[in-house]
Amino acid sequence: MNKTRFEQGLEVRRSVLGASYVDQAIENADEFNRPLQELVTEYCWGEVWTRDGLTKKTRSMINLAMLTALNRPHEIKLHLRGALNNGVSKEEIQEVLLQTAIYCGVPAAIDSFKIAREVFEESDKN
Amino acid sequence: MNKTRFEQGLEVRRSVLGASYVDQAIENADEFNRPLQELVTEYCWGEVWTRDGLTKKTRSMINLAMLTALNRPHEIKLHLRGALNNGVSKEEIQEVLLQTAIYCGVPAAIDSFKIAREVFEESDKN
Amino acid sequence: MNKTRFEQGLEVRRSVLGASYVDQAIENADEFNRPLQELVTEYCWGEVWTRDGLTKKTRSMINLAMLTALNRPHEIKLHLRGALNNGVSKEEIQEVLLQTAIYCGVPAAIDSFKIAREVFEESDKN
Amino acid sequence: MNKTRFEQGLEVRRSVLGASYVDQAIENADEFNRPLQELVTEYCWGEVWTRDGLTKKTRSMINLAMLTALNRPHEIKLHLRGALNNGVSKEEIQEVLLQTAIYCGVPAAIDSFKIAREVFEESDKN
Amino acid sequence: MNKTRFEQGLEVRRSVLGASYVDQAIENADEFNRPLQELVTEYCWGEVWTRDGLTKKTRSMINLAMLTALNRPHEIKLHLRGALNNGVSKEEIQEVLLQTAIYCGVPAAIDSFKIAREVFEESDKN
Amino acid sequence: MNKTRFEQGLEVRRSVLGASYVDQAIENADEFNRPLQELVTEYCWGEVWTRDGLTKKTRSMINLAMLTALNRPHEIKLHLRGALNNGVSKEEIQEVLLQTAIYCGVPAAIDSFKIAREVFEESDKN
Repeated sequence: MNKTRFEQGLEVRRSVLGASYVDQAIENADEFNRPLQELVTEYCWGEVWTRDGLTKKTRSMINLAMLTALNRPHEIKLHLRGALNNGVSKEEIQEVLLQTAIYCGVPAAIDSFKIAREVFEESDKN
Repeated sequence: MNKTRFEQGLEVRRSVLGASYVDQAIENADEFNRPLQELVTEYCWGEVWTRDGLTKKTRSMINLAMLTALNRPHEIKLHLRGALNNGVSKEEIQEVLLQTAIYCGVPAAIDSFKIAREVFEESDKN
Repeated sequence: MNKTRFEQGLEVRRSVLGASYVDQAIENADEFNRPLQELVTEYCWGEVWTRDGLTKKTRSMINLAMLTALNRPHEIKLHLRGALNNGVSKEEIQEVLLQTAIYCGVPAAIDSFKIAREVFEESDKN
Repeated sequence: MNKTRFEQGLEVRRSVLGASYVDQAIENADEFNRPLQELVTEYCWGEVWTRDGLTKKTRSMINLAMLTALNRPHEIKLHLRGALNNGVSKEEIQEVLLQTAIYCGVPAAIDSFKIAREVFEESDKN
Repeated sequence: MNKTRFEQGLEVRRSVLGASYVDQAIENADEFNRPLQELVTEYCWGEVWTRDGLTKKTRSMINLAMLTALNRPHEIKLHLRGALNNGVSKEEIQEVLLQTAIYCGVPAAIDSFKIAREVFEESDKN
Repeated sequence: MNKTRFEQGLEVRRSVLGASYVDQAIENADEFNRPLQELVTEYCWGEVWTRDGLTKKTRSMINLAMLTALNRPHEIKLHLRGALNNGVSKEEIQEVLLQTAIYCGVPAAIDSFKIAREVFEESDKN
């Protein structure tokens, strides 16, 4: 493990997905999934999300589209929260998901819209 | 067919994918694929790409990520050209595609990088 | 929005998926997902499902196969109900889903068979 | 191998995909891909395509939709020829593929329309 | 149905997925899903899993990777239990799933790791 | 970039995919795709393929199944060569690909069998 990159990744991961969520994921890691937590934190977050070439806001929008195509509801939920944290507005999320209706097909967009409404309700309560 | 929406769609489609490409696609349409050309122009371009909520530049970046996930090389090629037309820089394309390596997997990213190099070579000649 | 096409789409959508389900989807739409509801009603239903070239029964069978391949359980459920409304028999649903086992793989077919049994139980109660 | 099922499968496979294509596939089979040829002929064709519950014409339409979703151009080509052999008209193929634009997304439909035009040109020559 | 192949398939299916699970699946089969149960038992298990060329342990590892790529959580759960029955260790499951992070993308691996932890907890109780 | 991890990754990548192929990929890298080459070498190869928990032979078989599911022909070709280098026999490749026919569907298996025959012919010439 590359300590510095892991630390940098942890920082950006906490800022995007929320400190409490990430700290819990790291703490709850056992021998079985710790290598995954490390790989994800170091490469996905430390190597890619820390790069300068795109704002975190743009990265969030890209992720919502990509995860809709990939059909991964748990990650879509996480990254909808991340998108709000990164300053993506509800209107922008709406636009990204409407665009997925065209390219990924209507059922993909319907599923992501449904998850987005749940995340917004949850976030309105806090 | 909704004439206005079709005309608006045609305009934005020509500005993104290039007038000569789009005019040829419309002209070459025969009875068989004309309904598709109309649906795509009106629905995809007239209805979604004309919306105000996102810049065309952002829409292009989202498309590159989504099409990489969807594994559609012909469309990736078209939308790489469209991205350049919409002011996405090579560096930004690089960032989008690096991000696909993490979420869509390494083989998806490798395929899109390969196509991007071809599009850049072609575009450098012109 | 094209009013006429929206109205035509609404009519066929209600006849396939059931009036109460569709009316609720339209009524529950808020500012966030209304554009999706309109896009889906107008294009998917008003533009494609209203076309003459295929019977609604055939369109339903095609959808069950396609949605199984696309791995979208919520839509499969809706379109299983739609298929029954469009006169597809249980035996025909069985045939379509058996064919998905060959082309989409066994796990895809198993998932759709499971959903179909739930829909049939539910529909037998009414 | 179940001889009867294989023979029945071979017969329906030849009638759908064309005798010369299928005979060549069987003859060209070597030790490496013979088990696949046998599995496909017996299982896919002998077990599923021979069933009574759906016409071969309906099975062909379902396959075009499903293979478009699955993104398998070689098989789409084969089954477009098969669809013509099974009495699916160009207009019906058009309808099936337009429907894929909505559910599988526009890029999937564009790819299949392109292949269909090639198959029609080829078939018009014969 | 080929009786012998069905019986052989049933035997290997019971040994991999557990006798009680498989017996229940067969007993619960009704007219609707019996043809699927027979097809799966005879071809998937009787035709492929009975072959000599790979150990069942290797087949299990291949399945975990493939089902992660295919995004089929119910089958992943079943085949995680099957993998343990076939002598795949937790450490080996960890390795297979880490490898999916690279090729299928991080969200796919995260989903399968989550399911694996549930299966392990369940199996530790017994 | 983590130099040590990169060097280790380069070594295993060269041993699996062939030194000449990998050296050319690294040499041909330009400013645009160098970050991808580095990410892949360090992360995919240095971080995962170097791990002890599975033999390279097993990793190769897993990859063939996974890449078939993911529908990535270029990578399948590369990893078929890699599988031969890692001691996977033709018979074992046959078994892996037959298993994909069941889980990923018949068209996926047919595509991979076709590529495998090309790789074997090519490798028989050398």
